[in-house]
Amino acid sequence: MSLVVIGTVAFDAIETPFGKTDKIVGGAATYASLAASYFYDKTKIVAVVGDDFHKEDIEDIKNHGIDVEGLQIKKGEKSFFWAGKYHNDMNSRDTLATELNVLADFDPIIPESYQDCEYLMLGNLTPQIQKTVIERMHKRPKLIVMDTMNFWMDIAMDDLLETVKLVDVLTINDAEARQLSGEYSLVKAAQKILEMGPKYLIIKKGEHGALLFHEDQIFSAPALPLAEVFDPTGAGDTFAGGFIGYLAKVGTINFSNMKNAIIFGSALASFCVEKFGTERLKDLKQDEISERVKQFVSLSSFVI
Amino acid sequence: MSLVVIGTVAFDAIETPFGKTDKIVGGAATYASLAASYFYDKTKIVAVVGDDFHKEDIEDIKNHGIDVEGLQIKKGEKSFFWAGKYHNDMNSRDTLATELNVLADFDPIIPESYQDCEYLMLGNLTPQIQKTVIERMHKRPKLIVMDTMNFWMDIAMDDLLETVKLVDVLTINDAEARQLSGEYSLVKAAQKILEMGPKYLIIKKGEHGALLFHEDQIFSAPALPLAEVFDPTGAGDTFAGGFIGYLAKVGTINFSNMKNAIIFGSALASFCVEKFGTERLKDLKQDEISERVKQFVSLSSFVI
Repeated sequence: MSLVVIGTVAFDAIETPFGKTDKIVGGAATYASLAASYFYDKTKIVAVVGDDFHKEDIEDIKNHGIDVEGLQIKKGEKSFFWAGKYHNDMNSRDTLATELNVLADFDPIIPESYQDCEYLMLGNLTPQIQKTVIERMHKRPKLIVMDTMNFWMDIAMDDLLETVKLVDVLTINDAEARQLSGEYSLVKAAQKILEMGPKYLIIKKGEHGALLFHEDQIFSAPALPLAEVFDPTGAGDTFAGGFIGYLAKVGTINFSNMKNAIIFGSALASFCVEKFGTERLKDLKQDEISERVKQFVSLSSFVI
Repeated sequence: MSLVVIGTVAFDAIETPFGKTDKIVGGAATYASLAASYFYDKTKIVAVVGDDFHKEDIEDIKNHGIDVEGLQIKKGEKSFFWAGKYHNDMNSRDTLATELNVLADFDPIIPESYQDCEYLMLGNLTPQIQKTVIERMHKRPKLIVMDTMNFWMDIAMDDLLETVKLVDVLTINDAEARQLSGEYSLVKAAQKILEMGPKYLIIKKGEHGALLFHEDQIFSAPALPLAEVFDPTGAGDTFAGGFIGYLAKVGTINFSNMKNAIIFGSALASFCVEKFGTERLKDLKQDEISERVKQFVSLSSFVI
């Protein structure tokens, strides 16, 4: 039994109103696997980096008990690099550079030891690669969660729809749900998307929380109101990783556990944005997480 | 003991993607008093109309047990009129016409029989008139709730700040909270606004729900995800009226009752938007309201 996370492991250079970084570790698989590792100790990565990637950064990942056998290191090649600058409202950003490098011809190799995968997190990548990973699993995992973004809807909608068909849970933001469905109302959008394949849809609304749709049930999760968002990079990946990590831990897939998984995922994402990159996410303590989850409970509970 | 609502009683002409109306009854005091009347049977209006206002529309209000002694009818004058057209997303609208008419020199008269007022709802009007109403109460009401909007922040910020000082609860939307405080983070905005006078701040976020701030406590209320919003006109006033009506009914002001009041106010607002104008709000049944509140509970509850 294991949880396999596929996605980018990469360098980011980030600028926010609070400061800027040189190249630091980023990538969907990095954030998601770190988040999952707080709940589940059999988390494994499938990704690719160049030999410019720092050994210490891989050690950091391994130190969280994350299996990196599926992390390919390409000699003489460079890691994926993204540079971006957030606007003052932190809700929008400009991409300053995107260098695909090793990602350009990424062929995801699934080590034999990963074939016990029960939980599969498809971090944001081309839908074609996400689909390949599903196909390379000898046995269909118990739960497949897919994250994606508007970029793939713009340039690879057919591939995206093919992959969406195969997954159990899709996580996208509200604008993406509208784009994917052609419906403005999120309720109608969810109805259409649930007909495309996924049994569960999570619509992420950033500072407004998240909505979970399943059949005719809806759950509205709050976001923790924060005085300061230092760096939003990776928050969505952290959410997804925490979400699937929590489900792998509890082991039973139902609406009630999905709701809690969203709260735990949101709690981890609320830490992620407190510092640059993975800095805050790398050294969380279990009691900090419990305390944060308690804040979510008190934030949204009422008794009528 | 009574609940006094001050605000506009007016004509609206509304256009939405679903259709358009001729002049129909609208106004902040109309929506708020109708909403409050479902919880509290001693609701009283202070407002002004012209003699073009229809007797049947006043009868409709009276039929909800609402006292209209404070509703002035100006002979030979015309009622306040607003015409607007909503965009396809229903989140933005163009104002097509605003005719102040009787509102231009509105002098709010508080009948002697209203001086038992314990709950005062200051619906959206010039901050100067809202302040006058507070001053004309012989005894300060137990709870004063003030609604306002960006328009007054643009043209009468000093007056607005004077009135804000005097109230217990301020209800504004997220953009208005940012404008009033000069802070983008809603947590920081709330901290600043709570220093301006109010003990409680409600930030309305439309389809994203509402936030209640009080000292260091925060409550995040969900909005009911709706497949169709037919006409958003009056939703904010309905929310405020339901909110204060519920508090008048329970009679004790504390954070826990405030949270429930927000849920009841949100439930009434979710009905309001189902039809044009006050149509849906005029003939609600108590069991419909209870059923809707149950939906809010199931929407946002989780057990960790």
